[in-house]
Amino acid sequence: METRDHAKPVRVGIVGASGYTGGELLRLLLRHPGVEVAWATSRGGRELERVHRNLAEAGISFCREQDAGPCDVVFLCLPATVAMQHAPRYLDQGVCLVDMSADFRLRDRETYERVYGTPHSAFHLMSQAVFGVPELYRDELRRARLIANPGCFAITAILALAPLVSKHGEEVDLERLVVDGCSGTSGAGAQPITLVHHSEIAPSLQPYNVVDHRHTYEIEQELSRLARRPVSVHFTPSHGPFVRGILITAHVFFRPPPDRREILETFREFYQSEPFVRVLGFEREAATYVYEPYPSCAEVQGSNFCHIGVEVDPARRRAVVFSATDNLVKGAAGNAIQCMNLALGLPETSGLEAFGLHP
Amino acid sequence: METRDHAKPVRVGIVGASGYTGGELLRLLLRHPGVEVAWATSRGGRELERVHRNLAEAGISFCREQDAGPCDVVFLCLPATVAMQHAPRYLDQGVCLVDMSADFRLRDRETYERVYGTPHSAFHLMSQAVFGVPELYRDELRRARLIANPGCFAITAILALAPLVSKHGEEVDLERLVVDGCSGTSGAGAQPITLVHHSEIAPSLQPYNVVDHRHTYEIEQELSRLARRPVSVHFTPSHGPFVRGILITAHVFFRPPPDRREILETFREFYQSEPFVRVLGFEREAATYVYEPYPSCAEVQGSNFCHIGVEVDPARRRAVVFSATDNLVKGAAGNAIQCMNLALGLPETSGLEAFGLHP
Amino acid sequence: METRDHAKPVRVGIVGASGYTGGELLRLLLRHPGVEVAWATSRGGRELERVHRNLAEAGISFCREQDAGPCDVVFLCLPATVAMQHAPRYLDQGVCLVDMSADFRLRDRETYERVYGTPHSAFHLMSQAVFGVPELYRDELRRARLIANPGCFAITAILALAPLVSKHGEEVDLERLVVDGCSGTSGAGAQPITLVHHSEIAPSLQPYNVVDHRHTYEIEQELSRLARRPVSVHFTPSHGPFVRGILITAHVFFRPPPDRREILETFREFYQSEPFVRVLGFEREAATYVYEPYPSCAEVQGSNFCHIGVEVDPARRRAVVFSATDNLVKGAAGNAIQCMNLALGLPETSGLEAFGLHP
Amino acid sequence: METRDHAKPVRVGIVGASGYTGGELLRLLLRHPGVEVAWATSRGGRELERVHRNLAEAGISFCREQDAGPCDVVFLCLPATVAMQHAPRYLDQGVCLVDMSADFRLRDRETYERVYGTPHSAFHLMSQAVFGVPELYRDELRRARLIANPGCFAITAILALAPLVSKHGEEVDLERLVVDGCSGTSGAGAQPITLVHHSEIAPSLQPYNVVDHRHTYEIEQELSRLARRPVSVHFTPSHGPFVRGILITAHVFFRPPPDRREILETFREFYQSEPFVRVLGFEREAATYVYEPYPSCAEVQGSNFCHIGVEVDPARRRAVVFSATDNLVKGAAGNAIQCMNLALGLPETSGLEAFGLHP
Repeated sequence: METRDHAKPVRVGIVGASGYTGGELLRLLLRHPGVEVAWATSRGGRELERVHRNLAEAGISFCREQDAGPCDVVFLCLPATVAMQHAPRYLDQGVCLVDMSADFRLRDRETYERVYGTPHSAFHLMSQAVFGVPELYRDELRRARLIANPGCFAITAILALAPLVSKHGEEVDLERLVVDGCSGTSGAGAQPITLVHHSEIAPSLQPYNVVDHRHTYEIEQELSRLARRPVSVHFTPSHGPFVRGILITAHVFFRPPPDRREILETFREFYQSEPFVRVLGFEREAATYVYEPYPSCAEVQGSNFCHIGVEVDPARRRAVVFSATDNLVKGAAGNAIQCMNLALGLPETSGLEAFGLHP
Repeated sequence: METRDHAKPVRVGIVGASGYTGGELLRLLLRHPGVEVAWATSRGGRELERVHRNLAEAGISFCREQDAGPCDVVFLCLPATVAMQHAPRYLDQGVCLVDMSADFRLRDRETYERVYGTPHSAFHLMSQAVFGVPELYRDELRRARLIANPGCFAITAILALAPLVSKHGEEVDLERLVVDGCSGTSGAGAQPITLVHHSEIAPSLQPYNVVDHRHTYEIEQELSRLARRPVSVHFTPSHGPFVRGILITAHVFFRPPPDRREILETFREFYQSEPFVRVLGFEREAATYVYEPYPSCAEVQGSNFCHIGVEVDPARRRAVVFSATDNLVKGAAGNAIQCMNLALGLPETSGLEAFGLHP
Repeated sequence: METRDHAKPVRVGIVGASGYTGGELLRLLLRHPGVEVAWATSRGGRELERVHRNLAEAGISFCREQDAGPCDVVFLCLPATVAMQHAPRYLDQGVCLVDMSADFRLRDRETYERVYGTPHSAFHLMSQAVFGVPELYRDELRRARLIANPGCFAITAILALAPLVSKHGEEVDLERLVVDGCSGTSGAGAQPITLVHHSEIAPSLQPYNVVDHRHTYEIEQELSRLARRPVSVHFTPSHGPFVRGILITAHVFFRPPPDRREILETFREFYQSEPFVRVLGFEREAATYVYEPYPSCAEVQGSNFCHIGVEVDPARRRAVVFSATDNLVKGAAGNAIQCMNLALGLPETSGLEAFGLHP
Repeated sequence: METRDHAKPVRVGIVGASGYTGGELLRLLLRHPGVEVAWATSRGGRELERVHRNLAEAGISFCREQDAGPCDVVFLCLPATVAMQHAPRYLDQGVCLVDMSADFRLRDRETYERVYGTPHSAFHLMSQAVFGVPELYRDELRRARLIANPGCFAITAILALAPLVSKHGEEVDLERLVVDGCSGTSGAGAQPITLVHHSEIAPSLQPYNVVDHRHTYEIEQELSRLARRPVSVHFTPSHGPFVRGILITAHVFFRPPPDRREILETFREFYQSEPFVRVLGFEREAATYVYEPYPSCAEVQGSNFCHIGVEVDPARRRAVVFSATDNLVKGAAGNAIQCMNLALGLPETSGLEAFGLHP
């Protein structure tokens, strides 16, 4: 990387670009001012223009893996347990590797192998891997060669809870961090399945994997590190009848009654320099039955922003933290590009400035 | 009521029938084999056929309040704090009164007056009121003259938690009952508001009133009674982009690790004779990443059923209970009719047999 | 059938009951007062309770085809070109056969074989088949042993256009009947496919088979018969992001300027005795920009009703006719039961009285 | 404008920026590399951050109209009949005025006054107004000072039909151009109304203004000009349960049987140099029942692209043309910015390069 000519655009390759994450990387990278998309592979055999109809104007095609030329960065959009088989080869080529799968996220080998049900064939690379949350690992990302982009639920939940766990760890019940996560259907991928068949999902939320979703372990790993002791995350995901977005609702119990203003201040301070995290400060009027909207996925659609809202119930000694991201952007492709920007010395927000779509 | 001729249909009146709850009462009561809809009032001035276009075939009209004739049962579909002004008059006429508002739900006057922000003008009637949950108050409902139909979130959450609180109260942390409730947009009523304007709500869940929703106090009242000591309910509602249904996700913490089979058995036993509550018993396969669907609102649409699913995480000592209802049926009109059936000696399921629509 | 004991319930069997049409037949027939569901077969191997979660309370199971006992009526829910292979066997058993597929709808053999791409193996049965539109063939259905239930788009479009084609055939351009049909996603069936994958269909209408959808030929067949000369139907279907319902928008060109009142009268008269067709008569205020709602699928959900609305543009000599049905009820299962009721001498509306769900 | 310093960013003002169109102008202009948003007014009194929550990061505020400073371009986001009252003042100030309303779209005064029900108070300005379709009026827009941005349905329908009407006017029936238009709910604006109340619109399409929608007259005006004789457009709009997007389905009748290849070629040639119009060329396989997707709003969300698809039915001598836009971008704000770019000598695609969101 040291030899990269900064006057030239970064050459990027994408392995497995026919899914929703790969498509989103393409959508963003094709408009990134410092990047040239060198190639994108797909095993499906369908034309790019049909798979990603929004990119019809781009005039590009999928290439075969054997035709993939040299580049500076490779994004691996492969399933967990498959990505680790390809990672060593790309790292040997000296590229900066951004892995979108879970294969380099969990630092505890035993946990990985239990949760993913298979031995880890490239665990020696874990020492190089940086967990791709710029808000927590900005310095490490600046020299990273292997970036483990976090799970979409994981990064959204970590951003919701990091300030409280870091700054109020003594006051909160770290054994009882309750996290509800509702994801748009794009989180289930491009492959048709009954769970997100329109007729099935349109009339309801649909919970799934309700006590042992894999992202739980990423959230626990990172929050435990921030709290400097083990925390217990009780995570329950669902799909909701919308396309993009994750809304995390986190319930945090306090021993002393929490103070709304103080906690809001903690969040604002924690994220005050962050380009992509915004703590909303809606004031609630007392003693009236208001429909005051808290963060929603509506306003971050298509953007790399994470919106956070905090509410406090002193009587019941609970804080509720909401965080909203676009699961395909801050929850996947956008965050990965933010990490890449850091790793390659590009401006951190480059290619990611778009506001969310609302409505 | 004692003099009611059981060979004749029950004559029913509905006050305030232009909203979604009133419309749902009409939809069900017009097909109830033991009932005759005597009249339905509306203040809006629009024709019934335009307001409730699904009832165009019924050939009925709204009447003015002054033209409302005698009847056996009156359903009050009026806002909280308004209903209590009308209740005494109807009770004096000797009818069975089913109040769809919150005015006769809370047995603690101080709580009511604080939560609803107004003095209670008819609190002397509370001694006659029965909280309309047939699964808990079937006997009391059999002789009830004033039925306080519970809030839609409240009844769905109470049904989710009643078995655990009743039977495992010693083992669970009653201070930390976390209840997330997601309601379809019909729960916000027929009056257009920004919160459920399609462009606003379609792309996300939207939390609101996140730490002090009024239904919290109904849930706490009933669960405390079942537990025989005060419980603390941490309730956070949201609207989701679907029309009908409430999905409750309740998190319950255990001191000893809970046993999945035993808890499932508790639920099944608790509800084994209930005509409208069904405990689903999906088996989860171990160690695989499955999309096993838990209860959803999809399958109870238009029906009076409540579906319950239970999952247990022994490692983190948590149970997750899901309950799904149609907020307009078991969450409102259907449950009210079930209560009326009991109060008038009709078969409890009469007029409520329809299955849910799925898809 | 002549020997059927009218005091006993009609015994019904359903072949292929795991799809959406089969499930809808079950939903309705299990509550039909004159029917007993004798058996329902499924090839998928999954339990009925999981496939049709709304019927969990019914306590019934799929049976294997070889265990299917005797019955009075059989509904065939099989794909086109497959149904015709099973039909002769059931007819030989003397049951009344209701075929939900297209195999006995088209009276012209050549058209069938071209459109469905295969020879017709049981075309000799066509002489017995009655096209299942009660509004057109009530008398024939009263003695029918083989009922060809029409396509969901077809029946909805036929009901929209039958009055004009029958009564104003001289005045309208029968070569240019333009029919747009938008169906909810349940019309695409229970099998997950990309077209109705939630993330794909939620943000748009999606047209498909835009100039030669198979239902075109059913519509042309029936309208030509009513007009007593060949008509040309220009049918373009799409799926929309809702679950149940078909909305037909038919454009009809007149030679003399059409008169709104007269045409509305034609529709009202044509359907005045029909139990399930309602012509809406909304008055439009002149010279204002109004959002006057015309028929929508919202109000007929779950019901056997068809709502029709008519608008006329004398200046441009066009009438627009809207018809709305629930594609699974009047567009499939409900209509089939209406036909069965007629064929077996049951009250025509039996089991079909429910109003639509609105909202 | 001649004196504008091209090294400095264009200063833009927006009148009435609290609605969806104003918000979309802000979303795009705040990221436009050649533009500085000088001010944006709002009469509602709510903070910009609450009204447009997606722009919370922008750190800007609404200003009062009296505080609006000088600028180079003003976008008028005011209702029809109101905009014309403000236009003269801004034109007198020498700014380039882009009117988002209908007030300067119709060149026939009588038509305007009949359709909008009021005398036109500034009709003398019409001689300066350019109808803002860059694909038709690129040269005129390059020197325009008053741009009449077309209606969202109008521009989408005009783009669908312009090639056929221009190049095949002799062969097609210009009296019978049938145009169905389905718009996402954002087309109804930010003000809550029953028509797009979520519970009302979610389960169906909902037609409205079905024979005399105001955009009809814009479409007829422009197509008549292209055809060099009067055409008759039969336009029927509806709202569909999605947020952004318009899908136009246009039916065109031919006298001689149309040839698919030739017509596709007409479209490709017509739009070959256009930066924002793309003619899709999906091949349909013969004689099979395929679910081949045609253009949909899904793929153009958030982008300034218009996707067009053409299908031909030689047997019935009909072509079907689909065009899809984002109603807030190519249907409103994006197209207005494209016009502004032309008028001010900026690169035509500046600020509009983003691809659509898919999924």
